[in-house]
Amino acid sequence: MRTLLFVSVILLCALASASPDETEPQPSLMPWPASMQMGTGNLVIDTSFSVGISGPADTHLRQSVDLFLSDLRHQAGMPPLDMKVTDPSQAKLVVHADHASKDVQEPGEDESYSLTITSAGATLDAPTTLGVMRGLQTLLQLVTITADGFALPAVSIQDQPRFPWRGLMIDVARHFIPLDVLKRNLDGMAALKLNVFHWHLSDNQGFRLESKEFPKLQEMGSDGLFYTQEQARDLIAYAHERGIRVVPEFDMPGHSTAWFVGYPELASGPGPYQIERKWGVFDPAMDPTEERTYKFLDKFIGEMAGLFPDRYFHIGGDEVNGKQWSANPKIQAFMRSHGLKSNQDLQAYFNTRVQKIVSKHGKIMIGWDEILRPDLPKDIVVQSWRGQSSLADAAKQGYRGLLSYGYYLDLIWPASRHYGIDPMSDAASNLSPEEKQRILGGEACMWSEYVSPENIDSRIWPRMAAIAERLWSPQQVTDVNSMYQRLEAASQRLDWLGLTHNSSYWPMLRRITGSSDISPLRVMADIVEPVKDYSREETAPVEPTSLVPLNRLVDAARPESATGRNFAAMINLLLAGQADSVTKEEIRTWLIRWQNNQSELLPIAERSFLLKEVIPLSQSLTQVASIGLQAMDDLDRGESPGDAGKAQELAVLQQAQQQKAQLLLTIVPPIQKLVEAAGAHHSAEK
Amino acid sequence: MRTLLFVSVILLCALASASPDETEPQPSLMPWPASMQMGTGNLVIDTSFSVGISGPADTHLRQSVDLFLSDLRHQAGMPPLDMKVTDPSQAKLVVHADHASKDVQEPGEDESYSLTITSAGATLDAPTTLGVMRGLQTLLQLVTITADGFALPAVSIQDQPRFPWRGLMIDVARHFIPLDVLKRNLDGMAALKLNVFHWHLSDNQGFRLESKEFPKLQEMGSDGLFYTQEQARDLIAYAHERGIRVVPEFDMPGHSTAWFVGYPELASGPGPYQIERKWGVFDPAMDPTEERTYKFLDKFIGEMAGLFPDRYFHIGGDEVNGKQWSANPKIQAFMRSHGLKSNQDLQAYFNTRVQKIVSKHGKIMIGWDEILRPDLPKDIVVQSWRGQSSLADAAKQGYRGLLSYGYYLDLIWPASRHYGIDPMSDAASNLSPEEKQRILGGEACMWSEYVSPENIDSRIWPRMAAIAERLWSPQQVTDVNSMYQRLEAASQRLDWLGLTHNSSYWPMLRRITGSSDISPLRVMADIVEPVKDYSREETAPVEPTSLVPLNRLVDAARPESATGRNFAAMINLLLAGQADSVTKEEIRTWLIRWQNNQSELLPIAERSFLLKEVIPLSQSLTQVASIGLQAMDDLDRGESPGDAGKAQELAVLQQAQQQKAQLLLTIVPPIQKLVEAAGAHHSAEK
Repeated sequence: MRTLLFVSVILLCALASASPDETEPQPSLMPWPASMQMGTGNLVIDTSFSVGISGPADTHLRQSVDLFLSDLRHQAGMPPLDMKVTDPSQAKLVVHADHASKDVQEPGEDESYSLTITSAGATLDAPTTLGVMRGLQTLLQLVTITADGFALPAVSIQDQPRFPWRGLMIDVARHFIPLDVLKRNLDGMAALKLNVFHWHLSDNQGFRLESKEFPKLQEMGSDGLFYTQEQARDLIAYAHERGIRVVPEFDMPGHSTAWFVGYPELASGPGPYQIERKWGVFDPAMDPTEERTYKFLDKFIGEMAGLFPDRYFHIGGDEVNGKQWSANPKIQAFMRSHGLKSNQDLQAYFNTRVQKIVSKHGKIMIGWDEILRPDLPKDIVVQSWRGQSSLADAAKQGYRGLLSYGYYLDLIWPASRHYGIDPMSDAASNLSPEEKQRILGGEACMWSEYVSPENIDSRIWPRMAAIAERLWSPQQVTDVNSMYQRLEAASQRLDWLGLTHNSSYWPMLRRITGSSDISPLRVMADIVEPVKDYSREETAPVEPTSLVPLNRLVDAARPESATGRNFAAMINLLLAGQADSVTKEEIRTWLIRWQNNQSELLPIAERSFLLKEVIPLSQSLTQVASIGLQAMDDLDRGESPGDAGKAQELAVLQQAQQQKAQLLLTIVPPIQKLVEAAGAHHSAEK
Repeated sequence: MRTLLFVSVILLCALASASPDETEPQPSLMPWPASMQMGTGNLVIDTSFSVGISGPADTHLRQSVDLFLSDLRHQAGMPPLDMKVTDPSQAKLVVHADHASKDVQEPGEDESYSLTITSAGATLDAPTTLGVMRGLQTLLQLVTITADGFALPAVSIQDQPRFPWRGLMIDVARHFIPLDVLKRNLDGMAALKLNVFHWHLSDNQGFRLESKEFPKLQEMGSDGLFYTQEQARDLIAYAHERGIRVVPEFDMPGHSTAWFVGYPELASGPGPYQIERKWGVFDPAMDPTEERTYKFLDKFIGEMAGLFPDRYFHIGGDEVNGKQWSANPKIQAFMRSHGLKSNQDLQAYFNTRVQKIVSKHGKIMIGWDEILRPDLPKDIVVQSWRGQSSLADAAKQGYRGLLSYGYYLDLIWPASRHYGIDPMSDAASNLSPEEKQRILGGEACMWSEYVSPENIDSRIWPRMAAIAERLWSPQQVTDVNSMYQRLEAASQRLDWLGLTHNSSYWPMLRRITGSSDISPLRVMADIVEPVKDYSREETAPVEPTSLVPLNRLVDAARPESATGRNFAAMINLLLAGQADSVTKEEIRTWLIRWQNNQSELLPIAERSFLLKEVIPLSQSLTQVASIGLQAMDDLDRGESPGDAGKAQELAVLQQAQQQKAQLLLTIVPPIQKLVEAAGAHHSAEK
């Protein structure tokens, strides 16, 4: 199968050079800039490369330049003794910011920059340090190797983001994600010009941050897996150096079981409580009718407001099922006496109280769709998991909002699908200009039911880069082929930053096979994808909980199979009559390899409990590949399977399209097309 | 070429199963234990696995068990919520240490352990916590995947080290190596049961540790690349948790230019001094005739003796060329007045003075061969880069010693060559039992002229594991084939610990080619090795210094080519008449791939300055492969090249054996054998 990968790379190059964009080479920038003009020539980067800072040089700017040089040295393999910050008059790159960015970064700060590179030197100008940071990332993406050394192409770029809020949420509650993993993801975010890290710090399955006011939160609610306040400060500083805001979320009044393990008096039902191990929506909710709840939250939010400098404070507010409220006579009495007709009304009452606390501590409240009720002040922000129409409704009512619908990374969609979702489309496209201003951007969400420190990077990257481009680049940048080409380059650059989305694949496959040869497993792993949407839960062989190991093939398999996508592209070429003999041969080579893979996998599979479950998948692969080869033969010979044969083949394919071991064979749909084409040929012949 | 790798893996398996050791599967332990009996059955390891500590449980022991569980979870992909420390009566693994190891680890502490695994449970007994640590590493190596889950095979092991001092020296002066890189190498050391990290902290090219007494040492002597004392303490604690001593080295009186940048008054020649950028032996040396030198060293060594808990303190003492001493009339006068006849005598005087200072601060002095003079007290330790006879001489004089000759990792030898070097061989084999006791063990040395944080792991690992086995396992464990098989398993386990010896290869190859396809480069990279011994310096295209980037193919290429070794093994099979048709076909497939590689590499090479230099190497590869194919044909047909043809081929091969771009083609010697066999065939036919 290593042959096949090799072939596939050649094919990729062939496809790339066939694309019109590639006739003149374009830099692999991601997100694509607002405006770019290529020049001629190159600026060589060698060990004498230097950066000068002209104009005001705040610490933040200097840090950014140092980080840039460190990344540049790493990318080019240069020693740390070179490429210094020097006097602007002698520097190859001159960086200028009109003024420093704010001490506490705010949404809407100017992030624009203007970059000019000639063979003599480069200048990067920006109104703020933030703009310089974004431009430095563009510079890193422009570095290429040439016959004369590393170099930057002559180019002129004017760039600014489309949306001021471009975020990634990571849920560290369902599976704890250690600080170093978060840091490398912040590096990835900075590389893609993302500017908000939304830290989902508490949920039923864990309370992950040290509280000094209420230490039983982490002591009893985290299994010992939490961040100290010192670590949180460290992360916030790390993010700040990269132009990234950190917005903490403490989900309330639902999704809060972990709080109640140490503080059962906050809950609406009798305790004791235990840390939740399962996934889903659960009954426990804070008691909105008790003053002690607000006293607790006042103290707690006060403590957290001191820890997190960002102006925004996320209270969650999603998925309260209200069962504890309905079951509690005291709460029912309170609702009657306060004229609260429904649990939604009660939650609105809670939100109003909490908003006042958040506001008292100098913060602006943000929450999920459910918090939106017209009695809340207009400065709050709504994060929509429901969609653009929910966002548009909020905007019409005067509320600012963020889109997260369509950006849930845990649903294992292809990058192209996320890429196609625009916060300003559908209902939002009809808003007035003033209302449109209220749509601040979007946030991708990495809910962590099925991620561990080992595979979380592969669930976030590189697909996150497509979302980053959607939120930064002009609305009309929508070419999916171009996106995928640049996504591959972005993915490789993320390797330099230490992201493990590519590298973690191999040890995970080796674990599954034992120490022996992984190649037959890899042949299959390269063309499967985990089940989509919420079917990971529905199709689980054992009840999924936080105690279940994430060491199966479904956990190692990439969310999007590049091999599968390339194979589908080859079949499309073939069926369009545009495949040359090399491509046809490549299709056959792949199919033969897949057809024969089972015989290589079976002996290994018998020795590994983690391989046993994929044997049926492997059988399907053999069948599907055989059908594909038959269809190729039929097409070549102008023969056809006959109606009965075709029906039988399609039935097999339909069966093969079902998940097995929670995995999908990506090559089934293109082979289905092949079979249908062979059949159509037959019909036409008759 | 990916085909070929695949083929090679199959071949490896074939070779493995042909080996007599493999008829009954043996665990891939490294170092091989002193004694082992396999049982029947398995102990399953699942999320319910637990460890109990019986007997005295010091913090150190508990830390070791926690580290073990963390490594085990990582290896098996288990969540952090499982596999707890429990009551021994309920535990699957019961760990017992008779008593704690010493607070400050000492050479010669008992590291033995005894491990018994049955399908019902496992026990690990040791006299000390150190022995438990070594046994826990054995346990991690025993974990395999089976049809029923992860498992430990039933086995009984009694094990102890052959030598009490099993070390790795890392030179952090010539190239600075950051703390995290050192830490992951400490993890690797612990996995291989190594117990001394020798930290070469100062040299002409840098003074790498903060001194609070003499801050100009690091401020002026390190380019800002140094460890704080807090970081040093952190590293020492990290090593201690893993049963590893940290021995600091501050090289004196030579190799000390970096000291003189801040403190020129210590030197024997007039300043000012600059940090040395070149490699080699330089003139600057401390002035042994000035009392201020000893006052300085007294204060400095006192400070460092407080920072480093280990009893041993390394003063270097190597390679003083004496030029500054000879050129200084005041020093010459001193020598005359003190009856010192040579610079060696002067250095001995210096060493005697320094030894008293070291001893006053409670430490035992250790130094390189050159320090050995009979006037030094018998408690000092000599580290020999000269060889076993130097070590034997020392032992006869009553001095303890360590072997480093033969263990220089920077000389880029194959693992088998290091493996074949025994501290007790040659001159040392004739020592009396009492004298033999004085040979404490050995230390591998990673001098850092040509390593960066990016490739240092690949220069240390996996070859270091062969040296670790030499120093731990019984003397009669010498089977090279078995070593290489287990080395591969050890190498893959090191991946789990975060070592980058395998993973750094790919990004380095991608950097060289640019972002495009690396496969033709890899075909070549897989069968080349960097030049050996000191010829990296001699053959350098530009003068090598600390400012020269280490981003060439010679920096990415592995010290030992597994593909080359496998190819040579296939040729040996062929020439022994033991190759079946599959092997013959594989040899041809490789040769054809190599023959054709140039045409794939050239188009890429034109776009990259880092590829340009390897074009002649690639041409050689094509020629050599063609000659190999011709020889295969000749052998098949019973024909021969004729004497003239053979001579011409051998001349080409001889030329191909020369380094190009500082790289050697590993396939030349086996192809030479092929050609000679074809010629011999011819002679026999005549």
